[in-house]
Amino acid sequence: MGGGHPVPAEIKGLNEECGVFGVFGAEDASQLVYYGLHTLQHRGQEGAGIVSTDGTELYQHRDRGLLAQVFKDPAELKRLVGRAAIGHVRYGTSGHNSIANVQPFLFRFHDGDVALAHNGNLTNAQTLRRQLEDQGAVFQSDSDTEILIHLVRQHIKDGFIPALKWSLNQVHGGFAYLLLQKDRLIAALDPNGIRPLCIGQLANGSYVVASETCALDIVNATFVRDVQPGELIIIDRDGLHIDHYTTNTQLAICSMEYIYFARPDSIIHGVTVHNARKQMGRLLAREHPVDADMVIGVPNSSLSATSGYAEESGLPYEMGLIKSQYVARTFIQPTQALRERGVHLKLSAVRGVVAGKRVAVVDDSIVRGTTSKQIVQMLRHAGAKEVHLLISSPPFRFPCFYGIDISTRSELMAAHYSVEQMRQFIGADSLNFLSVNSLIKAIAVPDAGDAPNGGLTVAYFTGEYPTPLYDYEAGYLKSLNEQERLARKEHLS
Amino acid sequence: MGGGHPVPAEIKGLNEECGVFGVFGAEDASQLVYYGLHTLQHRGQEGAGIVSTDGTELYQHRDRGLLAQVFKDPAELKRLVGRAAIGHVRYGTSGHNSIANVQPFLFRFHDGDVALAHNGNLTNAQTLRRQLEDQGAVFQSDSDTEILIHLVRQHIKDGFIPALKWSLNQVHGGFAYLLLQKDRLIAALDPNGIRPLCIGQLANGSYVVASETCALDIVNATFVRDVQPGELIIIDRDGLHIDHYTTNTQLAICSMEYIYFARPDSIIHGVTVHNARKQMGRLLAREHPVDADMVIGVPNSSLSATSGYAEESGLPYEMGLIKSQYVARTFIQPTQALRERGVHLKLSAVRGVVAGKRVAVVDDSIVRGTTSKQIVQMLRHAGAKEVHLLISSPPFRFPCFYGIDISTRSELMAAHYSVEQMRQFIGADSLNFLSVNSLIKAIAVPDAGDAPNGGLTVAYFTGEYPTPLYDYEAGYLKSLNEQERLARKEHLS
Amino acid sequence: MGGGHPVPAEIKGLNEECGVFGVFGAEDASQLVYYGLHTLQHRGQEGAGIVSTDGTELYQHRDRGLLAQVFKDPAELKRLVGRAAIGHVRYGTSGHNSIANVQPFLFRFHDGDVALAHNGNLTNAQTLRRQLEDQGAVFQSDSDTEILIHLVRQHIKDGFIPALKWSLNQVHGGFAYLLLQKDRLIAALDPNGIRPLCIGQLANGSYVVASETCALDIVNATFVRDVQPGELIIIDRDGLHIDHYTTNTQLAICSMEYIYFARPDSIIHGVTVHNARKQMGRLLAREHPVDADMVIGVPNSSLSATSGYAEESGLPYEMGLIKSQYVARTFIQPTQALRERGVHLKLSAVRGVVAGKRVAVVDDSIVRGTTSKQIVQMLRHAGAKEVHLLISSPPFRFPCFYGIDISTRSELMAAHYSVEQMRQFIGADSLNFLSVNSLIKAIAVPDAGDAPNGGLTVAYFTGEYPTPLYDYEAGYLKSLNEQERLARKEHLS
Amino acid sequence: MGGGHPVPAEIKGLNEECGVFGVFGAEDASQLVYYGLHTLQHRGQEGAGIVSTDGTELYQHRDRGLLAQVFKDPAELKRLVGRAAIGHVRYGTSGHNSIANVQPFLFRFHDGDVALAHNGNLTNAQTLRRQLEDQGAVFQSDSDTEILIHLVRQHIKDGFIPALKWSLNQVHGGFAYLLLQKDRLIAALDPNGIRPLCIGQLANGSYVVASETCALDIVNATFVRDVQPGELIIIDRDGLHIDHYTTNTQLAICSMEYIYFARPDSIIHGVTVHNARKQMGRLLAREHPVDADMVIGVPNSSLSATSGYAEESGLPYEMGLIKSQYVARTFIQPTQALRERGVHLKLSAVRGVVAGKRVAVVDDSIVRGTTSKQIVQMLRHAGAKEVHLLISSPPFRFPCFYGIDISTRSELMAAHYSVEQMRQFIGADSLNFLSVNSLIKAIAVPDAGDAPNGGLTVAYFTGEYPTPLYDYEAGYLKSLNEQERLARKEHLS
Repeated sequence: MGGGHPVPAEIKGLNEECGVFGVFGAEDASQLVYYGLHTLQHRGQEGAGIVSTDGTELYQHRDRGLLAQVFKDPAELKRLVGRAAIGHVRYGTSGHNSIANVQPFLFRFHDGDVALAHNGNLTNAQTLRRQLEDQGAVFQSDSDTEILIHLVRQHIKDGFIPALKWSLNQVHGGFAYLLLQKDRLIAALDPNGIRPLCIGQLANGSYVVASETCALDIVNATFVRDVQPGELIIIDRDGLHIDHYTTNTQLAICSMEYIYFARPDSIIHGVTVHNARKQMGRLLAREHPVDADMVIGVPNSSLSATSGYAEESGLPYEMGLIKSQYVARTFIQPTQALRERGVHLKLSAVRGVVAGKRVAVVDDSIVRGTTSKQIVQMLRHAGAKEVHLLISSPPFRFPCFYGIDISTRSELMAAHYSVEQMRQFIGADSLNFLSVNSLIKAIAVPDAGDAPNGGLTVAYFTGEYPTPLYDYEAGYLKSLNEQERLARKEHLS
Repeated sequence: MGGGHPVPAEIKGLNEECGVFGVFGAEDASQLVYYGLHTLQHRGQEGAGIVSTDGTELYQHRDRGLLAQVFKDPAELKRLVGRAAIGHVRYGTSGHNSIANVQPFLFRFHDGDVALAHNGNLTNAQTLRRQLEDQGAVFQSDSDTEILIHLVRQHIKDGFIPALKWSLNQVHGGFAYLLLQKDRLIAALDPNGIRPLCIGQLANGSYVVASETCALDIVNATFVRDVQPGELIIIDRDGLHIDHYTTNTQLAICSMEYIYFARPDSIIHGVTVHNARKQMGRLLAREHPVDADMVIGVPNSSLSATSGYAEESGLPYEMGLIKSQYVARTFIQPTQALRERGVHLKLSAVRGVVAGKRVAVVDDSIVRGTTSKQIVQMLRHAGAKEVHLLISSPPFRFPCFYGIDISTRSELMAAHYSVEQMRQFIGADSLNFLSVNSLIKAIAVPDAGDAPNGGLTVAYFTGEYPTPLYDYEAGYLKSLNEQERLARKEHLS
Repeated sequence: MGGGHPVPAEIKGLNEECGVFGVFGAEDASQLVYYGLHTLQHRGQEGAGIVSTDGTELYQHRDRGLLAQVFKDPAELKRLVGRAAIGHVRYGTSGHNSIANVQPFLFRFHDGDVALAHNGNLTNAQTLRRQLEDQGAVFQSDSDTEILIHLVRQHIKDGFIPALKWSLNQVHGGFAYLLLQKDRLIAALDPNGIRPLCIGQLANGSYVVASETCALDIVNATFVRDVQPGELIIIDRDGLHIDHYTTNTQLAICSMEYIYFARPDSIIHGVTVHNARKQMGRLLAREHPVDADMVIGVPNSSLSATSGYAEESGLPYEMGLIKSQYVARTFIQPTQALRERGVHLKLSAVRGVVAGKRVAVVDDSIVRGTTSKQIVQMLRHAGAKEVHLLISSPPFRFPCFYGIDISTRSELMAAHYSVEQMRQFIGADSLNFLSVNSLIKAIAVPDAGDAPNGGLTVAYFTGEYPTPLYDYEAGYLKSLNEQERLARKEHLS
Repeated sequence: MGGGHPVPAEIKGLNEECGVFGVFGAEDASQLVYYGLHTLQHRGQEGAGIVSTDGTELYQHRDRGLLAQVFKDPAELKRLVGRAAIGHVRYGTSGHNSIANVQPFLFRFHDGDVALAHNGNLTNAQTLRRQLEDQGAVFQSDSDTEILIHLVRQHIKDGFIPALKWSLNQVHGGFAYLLLQKDRLIAALDPNGIRPLCIGQLANGSYVVASETCALDIVNATFVRDVQPGELIIIDRDGLHIDHYTTNTQLAICSMEYIYFARPDSIIHGVTVHNARKQMGRLLAREHPVDADMVIGVPNSSLSATSGYAEESGLPYEMGLIKSQYVARTFIQPTQALRERGVHLKLSAVRGVVAGKRVAVVDDSIVRGTTSKQIVQMLRHAGAKEVHLLISSPPFRFPCFYGIDISTRSELMAAHYSVEQMRQFIGADSLNFLSVNSLIKAIAVPDAGDAPNGGLTVAYFTGEYPTPLYDYEAGYLKSLNEQERLARKEHLS
């Protein structure tokens, strides 16, 4: 594709798309966490771990790989005894996929062990870490997550909770933390509520905390409430305590969660993800009607939007693309010769559906554009007469610094090319995106109040970040071109 | 559930739902077979194997498990050198899941080795095996598959092809065989074409044979033709030779392939499976309209029928159930306590979609009824006001003796209960099935000619089998009740 | 090394150095077999399997690899229920290391299943197999073992035992068979008793059969007797029945078993293997005294002979070479550069022992000579002033056709070179071998009677085989040079 | 066994018997470390790891299990690029066998990463850790090893080497540290040289550091010198720098290394371990001659002492016990019933050797006495008429606080029973131990100078520790009985 601005390495954050789950006060606590994490597996497939406590000691097991691989030996789960536990599934960038980075971390102190799991990304991690190291701190992972505990220990003489509150005011960015001590479970959310976190209750009255409500459903917990920006939740023998470490808050939940990241059955801040996606499809049909014989979706994440588009447009909704159920388990990679013969293990076009037809394809997003290009080729190879590509989100033009890995601008196609240039590269007959306004309207967070952008973070499309960028600021600005700087200024003004 | 007739063990065939794939005359033959089998993995997950030949020797690798597990070590695939190969994926009943039953089998003879892969089930296997054993034959597997090669060897002095033709006239039932010798690939189909088998051609002119066309697509082969009932296909250095071992044939392709077994993108005897399913959904909507707020499908196999039902009925098509992508890899099973808490790892109901709604659920079939019961419970638990269950196929009342494992009547709910009894057990507000006539109309096999039932085997619904049942006959008749005997007689007359 | 006669491939038998173990009438039968095989693991590391019976069905598990790997999942062993079982550990040549060749084989017949395990090698296998195939037999493995069961089935109408006796008269060579049926365990030994096989009795009166007595010891069985040449042993509900299928017998137990193959604690035909080896060392010291400062052995198989040499010679017995306990588990192979740096993972010379000393090294045998050469280099590198190599067996000049894999003459150093040429290649200061006469005297089988060579097979040293060579004869004779033909004739005359 | 003093949990140190290996300035550095560790595998089988550097970054791989398991995938080793590396094999107590404790540890700092591997145990770890935690330090493992790096970071402003020297003066006990930075390799030894550590040189002039000389031999390095007590060795681009962090030193090398822990081919402080052991056997024969027919050893660690005893006593040296090569790989454990039948997987008695004989058995040590008891039973069961047990070391009566896991007094048989009581429990006809004086004389460290006990730590026998016990002192004293306190005082006076 050529062109593009060189992006300084520093602006590539060590992003962590993750899922967390915790429970306090239930039999089989670690089994419940296992099932909760199982439902959150889509949030991270590169590592998983659980720490439990029986009120005396903390027990840990973690490893790289899918949850089911990490706990392949059922004895490992049985070893995690006790009535409270937290767990984590992790997506990490490949270069640092060391077990040292797999969470929950477990820190051992003479005055009480602490386990910590984190979903999110800090924007001032580099600065904090350097300060801490200069004061003698020893880090063992690459992740931002350790920083919190070092901050806490610096003020531990004030007591754990005061030290934690102070520390939560030092870290900036997007974060949802779970902490486990032998006698309590603690959850904390960043002041913008960028990452989702919710509370549920089991039949026996005990509480669970999870990244998404789908994880409440699997353990048959009743939804209690979303954790709100700036809150500190403490769950112990006496029940649920809702506290806060700051009141300087404003909701800016990540719009990506609704677009493709969360499970369609999850409800985030009152909005069912499937419904939001279907509505994105409807509004996309209103903004960009196409003259086609059918609508098809890219399985599985785009199917909600596709059915919305079909209903609104009145076009028949067909299964023109199939996703293999078995692809993730394949170790044999096609040779170059086979790739040229068109071996696609993941997606197949349905010749009997698309041959001779004008096909509207709905996808949820474009990152690099290479997958879109393959999909268009595959459909044409299967006989499609026209291929119109419709994206149920706006173009991704700016990186995420809060924990979703679309991090470097150099990889974002829309950061460097116009929509028409993208269409040509992809080879579609037409290419259209949902507008930012329609996106906000489609999601329509009910408890957004007068927060900007309807309580959503839409910085990936506008460059308008809800927080200062701190360590990323300089590199980020350098990576913008003139036009983007103007566009950003326009948004910011 | 009580009641039901005791079913003699003998009528439980050792069914083998399988997929086969072969190629002759291409570089990387075993890699092509690997990709073909990968696409056919839905036809069998309990074992996989490939035999290749370089024109001198035959090389085999097979094991229990998914294809990707069997070939976890890429060196195993590299060892299978040569320009011709056949492969097999297998579904076997658990009691006999020995590696000795994993195909392709490889038989070593001083006058030339033979590999054999089989999809189907013989109805006179027991009789033939006993005769062969009495003549000194030594069997090493439980499967029917070995029988063919013993028959061939008894007449080997007539030459391999004549002996094979003679043997194919001795075996009865449903079968699609692939054989590999060092200098040719042979395919044969039963006289009723019960199991699907098709031929494709690669860009270099060489041929592939596969259970379904989706496996042609993945290796970029062009569809040539379906193998016809009674045909013997020989592929060698000189190309494709179409021969036959009998002319006493009549098409009776298995309707189950269209209902749920084949991949939706496959085209069988001219009919795209997705289209057939969608049409089943449409006809189901005509036969059984319901008063509901939305239609939802049971993922993934029922989604085509569901969209057909939605379009015909005008009801909105929603995502009310979600299937986990990760379930197959889970080794940890819920404790009884957790099961009672409602832990379902495979399916989740989408509360935000179904709560407070009257829901029409489309599923492709009911075997034991237990899954349907769970789905209804799950939807009600998520708040659905009414749950109407619609099945896009007729009730399964009679076993399959041709290779689909719905074998024993004792397990078939519809063999023992009325539709109303079934509705009560499942707990749905209504329960309706597609009629046999609509099923036949929905599939509408174009080259069926004047074959009964539109060229389909619908015995599972009618008891009207396209072939004599031989070894199964006595036990089968004994398992019927008076009413069924009458029903069957009626059909047969 | 150059030179040497080209050896026709045919004379390379598919040898199977193996161990067998069976039990009839005990609780935990398959566990007992597991422990028996564990003790016999030195007889074969490439595959292992067990077949058990509960009096109704036969249950099998087998796979490639060490016993502990094959039964890594304890559930596999638990599945092998019943009070009778047989097992097998296998050494196979690498080219044919398919699971199809791993024993015991299990054959399924309508009139009763049979399992079969075999230690040995047939000399007329090729001829028999060809005859059987021409009569319609279908073989699935490369091994000789299947032949027996095909022969039995040809005469099965006479009853199993008569058919078996007839069959045992058709197969020639060295063999120890174990067969398991649902109601009995059968053992049979070749007419020369070339392979060892013994019977023991458990405290509860039930019987076990094993390749070596060390396997009796581990299950706490009392030694009853060695199986004698030509015997057919039947163990059933009524106890132990000693029968024979031929009376044309003469003991010629394989001398290799005493030299290096059997475990030192086993007692074969009344001779403790350690004692025989120690005596070989003593006689070697008498035949070949050396002027040295110490005697060291090559661990572990030569340590018995070394202590014999030390005692007889009066030289101190030192630990000059160490064998790593962990070598078998290493997957990382040294790079060429590291090999040149002298990385030896298996053996290390003890510098502090050998530096500056004249060292006598006792080893049990020389096959290719490459290991001996490395040992000498290693000792010199560690500072040894002189290295005198003493071999406690005669030179291996002729292949074994009875189940020990020193099969091709092209690999036998002593088949092609004089002792002085060997010494030069190896780089030792002197090289000496035990004479055939001393070997026979050292072992001194008490029940040899007037059998030639003291009841031993010494053909590997003399070319004088105790049986006709059948299929191997032509190729073998062609591989001899003039001198050897004379030498052989001399021995034979 | 009853009786015994209750031992406070605190006196059980988290001992780490370990092996370390490092190289600086060689191609394939991580491969060299792999081979070095392979030779040191006897020092620790529960975890292994390597950290390498290419001069820019540090690369780590570590996991639980044997070295060959940890590096099963050769790609893991290839990833560890660069010309310098350190590695570690670890023995840890099972309760804390978490991967977090597997070394080398890797600490990431903005001013340069540091890897650390440690063999030994600190006696003031608890105190130091508590102090550090109170100052804000965060620990992630249970091991003592992290302490050093926290100390260093507290003084890092003084520069790394000065901070390290200061830190080495804070930690007490037995330690051998290896540290790796991107531009140098550092080694440090405690002021008493309790743990062994030596330096070698490769052909290209670069240096290696290892726990034992056997690891120098495998990579073909020439021995340079033992690291001396109190030394700090720095190896960088400019070569080898020998510095020291204290001059208050006195050699007290652990006598256990000579008795059973080190490999017999290693040379520690000028003494070949095999020779020391053989001499222990000789002196044992002088102190305790027995009237027996033969001497046998417990394989493998007692064979050197046994041959010494045999030579000195003039009794024949026989192989009366055999050790299975395959035992470590067994996952199937004998049932209670089988254990009662006498199933021993590890050791077998050689009936043909010992039956009817008076047997002298040499073993290197007795810890709990249970193994000795089994050996005596096994020999009697095999027919031995008398069994005389001779131990080539003095009775272990006091724990080791420097890194060998014979830690709690409650497990040490000799801490609670007289020799006669032990003999009765074990069931031997006689039981005798080597005296402390003879042990010292047998080892005879040449560079001991006038250090007490010939430069050896013999505290396990005498209670006379070469260092203060700090954190262990109180608990230790409490565990002594009156007599021991007197005995200790006597030694100390």
